Amino acid sequence: MTTLGIVKRNITRADKAAVDKLGRFGVATVHEAMGRLGLMQRYMRPIYSGALVSGSAVTVLLHPGDNWMMHVVAEQIQPGDVVIAALSADNCDGFFGDLLATSFMARGAKALIIDAGVRDVRELTAMGFPVWSKGISAKGTIKSTLGSVNIPVVCAGISVNPGDAVVADDDGVVVVPAEWAHKVADAAEAREANEGEKRAKLAAGVFGLDMYNMREPLAKAGLKYID
Amino acid sequence: MTTLGIVKRNITRADKAAVDKLGRFGVATVHEAMGRLGLMQRYMRPIYSGALVSGSAVTVLLHPGDNWMMHVVAEQIQPGDVVIAALSADNCDGFFGDLLATSFMARGAKALIIDAGVRDVRELTAMGFPVWSKGISAKGTIKSTLGSVNIPVVCAGISVNPGDAVVADDDGVVVVPAEWAHKVADAAEAREANEGEKRAKLAAGVFGLDMYNMREPLAKAGLKYID
Amino acid sequence: MTTLGIVKRNITRADKAAVDKLGRFGVATVHEAMGRLGLMQRYMRPIYSGALVSGSAVTVLLHPGDNWMMHVVAEQIQPGDVVIAALSADNCDGFFGDLLATSFMARGAKALIIDAGVRDVRELTAMGFPVWSKGISAKGTIKSTLGSVNIPVVCAGISVNPGDAVVADDDGVVVVPAEWAHKVADAAEAREANEGEKRAKLAAGVFGLDMYNMREPLAKAGLKYID
Amino acid sequence: MTTLGIVKRNITRADKAAVDKLGRFGVATVHEAMGRLGLMQRYMRPIYSGALVSGSAVTVLLHPGDNWMMHVVAEQIQPGDVVIAALSADNCDGFFGDLLATSFMARGAKALIIDAGVRDVRELTAMGFPVWSKGISAKGTIKSTLGSVNIPVVCAGISVNPGDAVVADDDGVVVVPAEWAHKVADAAEAREANEGEKRAKLAAGVFGLDMYNMREPLAKAGLKYID
Amino acid sequence: MTTLGIVKRNITRADKAAVDKLGRFGVATVHEAMGRLGLMQRYMRPIYSGALVSGSAVTVLLHPGDNWMMHVVAEQIQPGDVVIAALSADNCDGFFGDLLATSFMARGAKALIIDAGVRDVRELTAMGFPVWSKGISAKGTIKSTLGSVNIPVVCAGISVNPGDAVVADDDGVVVVPAEWAHKVADAAEAREANEGEKRAKLAAGVFGLDMYNMREPLAKAGLKYID
Amino acid sequence: MTTLGIVKRNITRADKAAVDKLGRFGVATVHEAMGRLGLMQRYMRPIYSGALVSGSAVTVLLHPGDNWMMHVVAEQIQPGDVVIAALSADNCDGFFGDLLATSFMARGAKALIIDAGVRDVRELTAMGFPVWSKGISAKGTIKSTLGSVNIPVVCAGISVNPGDAVVADDDGVVVVPAEWAHKVADAAEAREANEGEKRAKLAAGVFGLDMYNMREPLAKAGLKYID
Repeated sequence: MTTLGIVKRNITRADKAAVDKLGRFGVATVHEAMGRLGLMQRYMRPIYSGALVSGSAVTVLLHPGDNWMMHVVAEQIQPGDVVIAALSADNCDGFFGDLLATSFMARGAKALIIDAGVRDVRELTAMGFPVWSKGISAKGTIKSTLGSVNIPVVCAGISVNPGDAVVADDDGVVVVPAEWAHKVADAAEAREANEGEKRAKLAAGVFGLDMYNMREPLAKAGLKYID
Repeated sequence: MTTLGIVKRNITRADKAAVDKLGRFGVATVHEAMGRLGLMQRYMRPIYSGALVSGSAVTVLLHPGDNWMMHVVAEQIQPGDVVIAALSADNCDGFFGDLLATSFMARGAKALIIDAGVRDVRELTAMGFPVWSKGISAKGTIKSTLGSVNIPVVCAGISVNPGDAVVADDDGVVVVPAEWAHKVADAAEAREANEGEKRAKLAAGVFGLDMYNMREPLAKAGLKYID
Repeated sequence: MTTLGIVKRNITRADKAAVDKLGRFGVATVHEAMGRLGLMQRYMRPIYSGALVSGSAVTVLLHPGDNWMMHVVAEQIQPGDVVIAALSADNCDGFFGDLLATSFMARGAKALIIDAGVRDVRELTAMGFPVWSKGISAKGTIKSTLGSVNIPVVCAGISVNPGDAVVADDDGVVVVPAEWAHKVADAAEAREANEGEKRAKLAAGVFGLDMYNMREPLAKAGLKYID
Repeated sequence: MTTLGIVKRNITRADKAAVDKLGRFGVATVHEAMGRLGLMQRYMRPIYSGALVSGSAVTVLLHPGDNWMMHVVAEQIQPGDVVIAALSADNCDGFFGDLLATSFMARGAKALIIDAGVRDVRELTAMGFPVWSKGISAKGTIKSTLGSVNIPVVCAGISVNPGDAVVADDDGVVVVPAEWAHKVADAAEAREANEGEKRAKLAAGVFGLDMYNMREPLAKAGLKYID
Repeated sequence: MTTLGIVKRNITRADKAAVDKLGRFGVATVHEAMGRLGLMQRYMRPIYSGALVSGSAVTVLLHPGDNWMMHVVAEQIQPGDVVIAALSADNCDGFFGDLLATSFMARGAKALIIDAGVRDVRELTAMGFPVWSKGISAKGTIKSTLGSVNIPVVCAGISVNPGDAVVADDDGVVVVPAEWAHKVADAAEAREANEGEKRAKLAAGVFGLDMYNMREPLAKAGLKYID
Repeated sequence: MTTLGIVKRNITRADKAAVDKLGRFGVATVHEAMGRLGLMQRYMRPIYSGALVSGSAVTVLLHPGDNWMMHVVAEQIQPGDVVIAALSADNCDGFFGDLLATSFMARGAKALIIDAGVRDVRELTAMGFPVWSKGISAKGTIKSTLGSVNIPVVCAGISVNPGDAVVADDDGVVVVPAEWAHKVADAAEAREANEGEKRAKLAAGVFGLDMYNMREPLAKAGLKYID
């Protein structure tokens, strides 16, 4: 009657080409391309600005104040993975610091997404290991209760299955189901294809009102211009 | 019975000289100079540090999850304007991104102040377009309901009339009614006039207690020094 | 029946060598070394990233919206002190700006830790004076009510006595009672002593599972690996 | 250059018949009838459940931690008024208790709407004087700074002019501009006119899908039923 | 590539006997019996005190500000069901009021659990229809975008599958996977079996220290009694 | 180097007569009588309305997610005590329910004040055991780490020493140092002595402006009446 105490070793990761392609677009674009689903709660913020990563999800379920399973999940990381850490109950202690980051980087992890707190952020920033978290806290954790690795989890309001594609940047974190990764990547590419042209027009002073043909629908909706 | 669906084209902007002068002082000084009124709620934060802008307000009223009017307001921007975006109800979706920023910059906008969320913050930062917002979110918006442009609005707790002067920096956002702009700018200038001298004294080790003649009133109020 | 209106001039500061030694370790390490006590609420955040300071506490009790005592405490600062500002009730106005910072720096203060708001953060950042605060606000304060200096206070959830050692960095703020300073500094040093070795092992790909001998206790706790 | 220190004695109150009529409908209905404008932020909560009031706004602008003007506004209350208390900056001290409530009730006030805290809530509940506030706090206030009475204010995100109609219940607080009061009351009445019939149908098991003719638009939008 | 626009009509509900049995125990007991999993975020609060309900989940996925699917889900309700309403993005508008409650009650629904806001709470309380929600808001919603009914959703941090057992009371909301319902109900019963005896002992003055044999482990852990 | 693992059996309780007398006044009055000190953060709310209690503090320091020491403190309760539960770090799990309440009541405890969560609130309400807490949560706790009993603690921002007087009602919680209890009780009595007379005057329509002689200072401050 439980899903605790399990480590699933073999998972099907989202296609690497699709994951890499998703990483060429920001979170906002991918979120749009997927029909506006999959976006984690906006309290998930990067510990430093400017990072953009994509990867395949390795999941871990932790208990409040206990980071034992972070060591277990480290062994399951493969190059290109992003670790998604969920909690069985609300907590913002510091589950992760520079030693674990060293281990995760050695395994090839690209980032950590954690619905809890982290610490050693000055060191993590210096190491260039990007983390999106609910908060920052020096409060330590213990190692005494079993969670699980690579089971489906809920992280910051979004269901994540092991192997799902994940994209994160300064705008937040979005999760793309593995089986949708290619289609979403294509849709994102299509969205961006003509953005250059649009940007050039707008920069030249063309109005979105004209470029998107909004004047007529606005007038129909009743928009009045007065002086 | 409504103020929706209106775009006012001709507004009286605060005097440009006064607006520019206000921009030489930070938000804290302007707020003090105006008698401690006009300061937006402190949840309004810049998407990047270090910017200081002043401008004349162009206002837009938006509905939750709907950024249609952002395209309408773009056309009303004149060089030196700051767009003030208010919402008819609480919402923090991402109403603004790099394409709209391109359009606003092409029109000469100096900043966006929005009581909601924005996205593409990495791009906006690279473009150097400053935004003060309630939050950051990749969540997209639709374009289906009319709001208004250049009507009086309430943004982050402060009434803003089109044409009012606006100053924003890392300390927040302050709104100066257009008709007060000159007097407030003068008062701000007066406040700062002798700050250099004060700073020099304090840096030299003079106590504020002495410089501001506080020892006597403190003693009268009953302050006791013990060992 | 009151502790207001008092300035204690002579306080016993934590041993300087211990305070300096504590400053070689981050907040997370010191917090661990002290048995996970003394950590301020995590809403205390630095106004800029990257600072790490340690010092001896000079305390000040302020009332909401009134920063009069900040000028009184300035005189009590000695080189190497960190000012700890507590409030008699919840408030987030801007109690501190560039002029006070100039005065504090002239006195040799290393930082300000304040359970309220600050302003002029662009200037404070340029001056390199680190502040940890509950928030940022341009809202000014008055000077009309007596608080106290160098009495025991509660700041962001933690009791602070004048003279206590304080360490602050990007992870938060931790307070070490003066009489524990040496032991905690030693314990922190011991914690870090073999971190270099551990880091090297982890960087080389050794698992924490092996380095910390966790495989057996995990198995005993019932951890199952499945494919 | 200020709007502080003013008490306007003669204000034009919304028509009493319209205000009374508005009070027959809840906040949700009035808000809908006004085109979904005028609703205060949802942090405004009643100190006890079950009250429904309508009245004409008498406004007061207060400063943080200072309730001096509450005594000034008391004199301006007329029977049927609702006092709208706004603050010049964010604060949640206890500005109002049983003595002021006694005075307000003696003047015929129907309620207090305050964007700050109140205290003596057990006594206020026993007296049956309804209050909607941002919070509850025993923290007292001083009487030292001038605000104003019967000037336009922003309360919980909404502009309120003296004389506007106000409706409050367990769902929140809505403000109806005085000149709209009749039309909004009529629109609210129209909304409710056929609600009895609708309620009877729904109670009898008729689906909203059929009663509102939603099946066709849902099918057009692409809704699929699967087994 | 989407899960939107789907209504699943046939779902397998948790065994009625198990669901009813779960309803004899409070949320705290059920949560314990399930190994401390399944508890929704604690921001989910009842609109009135004292209710305790259990039921089988009928799920609905809504979009921010749009309650169209609430009418669609009404038709899928069977007697004894609890409607679980999840959102595709953070929102707290008022999605549900007395008319929908009338319809839900006519269908036999026992409660609504919604990760958003509700309105008409005075009427809902009078009707005795219990709702657990994220908040209360009079803000209305539109009917324009398709969500889905009876798909897996995430509600207040917990994954819910259609047919799962749900228990809610003043302590919050817990979700029991349908296939665990019997075992969890039995475990809850076992937990409560000897509670009466324990309660009697404690009421008679027996210490938990003795009843639970804690004195020895406490002493072993190092607990010292001093005078 | 630690204050953990200690149970102090003999504490000096505030004088019973003073504690009882304090209980005749509400929190707001006591807080005023003490010079506006001692008020816990306003997030401390009663689980049900209408209770007013005073008692002598028995303190307990707990760790996040661990309520072991609640059983230890139970033994130290004497009739008339109020248990003050502080945490070593931020946490809102449910540390206390109906069984512990049964034990506390059997010992003569008058209330629990806890800077964390509680559960079984329906049962606690039925039992009439008042609790002021940071929140409500069904989330259980473990019993594995030593805290302390009857050491000085910080609870919701206020220092509490064992034996201090505590008063709590719907307005919040205030702590009176044991040595001040008599003086504060007398001061509270003095404050209330003429409140009956004031209330009668205000109820008769006398203005606070006149009763408190405010008209002259208001005029001096510059208040202008306009029509």
